[in-house]
Amino acid sequence: MNPAEPGERDARAERGRFSEDELLAAIRKVLSGPGPGVVAGPGDDAALVEVGSGHGVLTTDVLVEGVHFERSLTSARDLGSKAIVANVSDVAAMGGSPRYAVVSLAFPRDVEAAWVMELYGGMRAACDEYALSLVGGDLSAGAEVVVSVTVMGEVARGKAVFRSGASASERVVVTGVLGAAAGGLALARARLPSGVLGSDWARELLDAQFRPVARVGEGQTLAQVGATAMMDVSDGLAIDLSRLCAESGVGARVDLARVPVAPALRELAAVAPVDPLGLALSGGEDYELLATLDHHVVERARSRLEERFGVPLADIGEITEGEGLVAVGADGTERPLEPKGWDHFGSR
Amino acid sequence: MNPAEPGERDARAERGRFSEDELLAAIRKVLSGPGPGVVAGPGDDAALVEVGSGHGVLTTDVLVEGVHFERSLTSARDLGSKAIVANVSDVAAMGGSPRYAVVSLAFPRDVEAAWVMELYGGMRAACDEYALSLVGGDLSAGAEVVVSVTVMGEVARGKAVFRSGASASERVVVTGVLGAAAGGLALARARLPSGVLGSDWARELLDAQFRPVARVGEGQTLAQVGATAMMDVSDGLAIDLSRLCAESGVGARVDLARVPVAPALRELAAVAPVDPLGLALSGGEDYELLATLDHHVVERARSRLEERFGVPLADIGEITEGEGLVAVGADGTERPLEPKGWDHFGSR
Repeated sequence: MNPAEPGERDARAERGRFSEDELLAAIRKVLSGPGPGVVAGPGDDAALVEVGSGHGVLTTDVLVEGVHFERSLTSARDLGSKAIVANVSDVAAMGGSPRYAVVSLAFPRDVEAAWVMELYGGMRAACDEYALSLVGGDLSAGAEVVVSVTVMGEVARGKAVFRSGASASERVVVTGVLGAAAGGLALARARLPSGVLGSDWARELLDAQFRPVARVGEGQTLAQVGATAMMDVSDGLAIDLSRLCAESGVGARVDLARVPVAPALRELAAVAPVDPLGLALSGGEDYELLATLDHHVVERARSRLEERFGVPLADIGEITEGEGLVAVGADGTERPLEPKGWDHFGSR
Repeated sequence: MNPAEPGERDARAERGRFSEDELLAAIRKVLSGPGPGVVAGPGDDAALVEVGSGHGVLTTDVLVEGVHFERSLTSARDLGSKAIVANVSDVAAMGGSPRYAVVSLAFPRDVEAAWVMELYGGMRAACDEYALSLVGGDLSAGAEVVVSVTVMGEVARGKAVFRSGASASERVVVTGVLGAAAGGLALARARLPSGVLGSDWARELLDAQFRPVARVGEGQTLAQVGATAMMDVSDGLAIDLSRLCAESGVGARVDLARVPVAPALRELAAVAPVDPLGLALSGGEDYELLATLDHHVVERARSRLEERFGVPLADIGEITEGEGLVAVGADGTERPLEPKGWDHFGSR
């Protein structure tokens, strides 16, 4: 026994820090307890979950401080929620339903335990919202905050929609509006007067960046009406569409006038130097769904999304033979659409 | 089109760097392709996998540079392998079989693409060895290397072994030998003459640290003979046993003379200031299995592990009523066994 130990422990607690076991015990209270499909949640080497008779969908996304978020701009709660939503969106893009999540978290020793608990609280709230269970994880010290979430979902056999199924002459559609998340980040960084931040359009942009939503029901609806290919718009419409086309061995022609630019970006452009169409094409983090459909079913898909979710579906162009993306201007002129977007390693 | 782009791209390639899509394409060739249970592997928003009629086992582990490894001491290939093995070991500790893995990787911009490919090569080799499929992941820039692997496994319904099942008067057993991984790390850091590093005992310690193995068959065998509780020894025998006991609401008495100290540690102790028993009790990263068994089945478990895997099983003590761990010395004296081990956030 080291007589200094109790004092050290008190000092750690005063600073809001805990030992790993103390922190794990606190976090465990926030994780989902026993529930549908959860045979054993946190507290063991691994979680034990029921697996259905369908197909499992497995996806992981990592959020890194200084790359995906800044601790000075986002709340821990919003960050936790977004880490879950980014993964749920990937499951939605397959036409599946999210079921279970695990999280690996690294953070510097000077991060307060309360911040970590808020992060877990945000993850738990998002899991509750999307009906999945947060069943475990791992903790480590690190030089920066890194949140890595893995989600397992389910989809009925034969019902998953891949990126690789698009064919020439199909229509390219996208849910919701684009560019709002990137606009929200630009707004948060722009240090505008606080009066601006209280406006409806500013709230819309900030919510898109810090409190995004995943399109789970919308993905299933698009799968039901016959989406031939689907993915989520996480890195930007242009680069994500180029990836879908590459997987399908096709090209695409995009009508720029039909790209659903978030209306709030026009308000932002009045007070800050942003390009609304540019953000809609390359901004990233919108978590909308990009899909291809036979032209006969576009109207059915549009009306179902509108009725069920109040979410618009924009028909933005056409799949073509060959490779590459072409942007068609309002005046009919064509130019190559550069697959720009979020690239962690390329030059910007 | 920016005329500087082709030049920048060439400069990146010369430095061994790629854009995210280029790196993803290269990594994809190393990932497991279609195989048993893999409906769709990498290249989509998520992997699609068959799920059986049993229970799914979901676990995640994160390895952080400067905390779990030093790039100057480990090869990328060994690091990749160890990231998989740490997760496979958690599945083994439930009595399950690993099936699928996904990885989230963050790394600084100055890391060479070849290093990343070696890391993936090591993960792929370990997945091949343990018969699981590496089906996808995510990449990000970051200030340090962070490898977060999630493994999904399977176990027959009702056959999983938890940490919470131990009862008083059961025996405490552990596979293999302990302390070798911590000894290997001490050896790698000690800058001993290279003649020492070529010896069999040094190789054994270095392999334990840098090329650990997971006890998958051994875990299933222990489950079959009736293990009542089980976990892997990843943070150190003392702290891991204290966790098993806490989950089970029991205590334990450990006979120090029966703790299977890795023999190579005695050789190391002759040339470096290490405490073999201390490393065996608190060193961590051994990935051996710690289990509790009715005393009637210990001999059966021991002979099966010896016959099937050539792996020894040590009977190191007894589960007791109440709380806490007691260490019994060779002379019969008793003292509290402090639950020391790997704690990322506590004082050391």
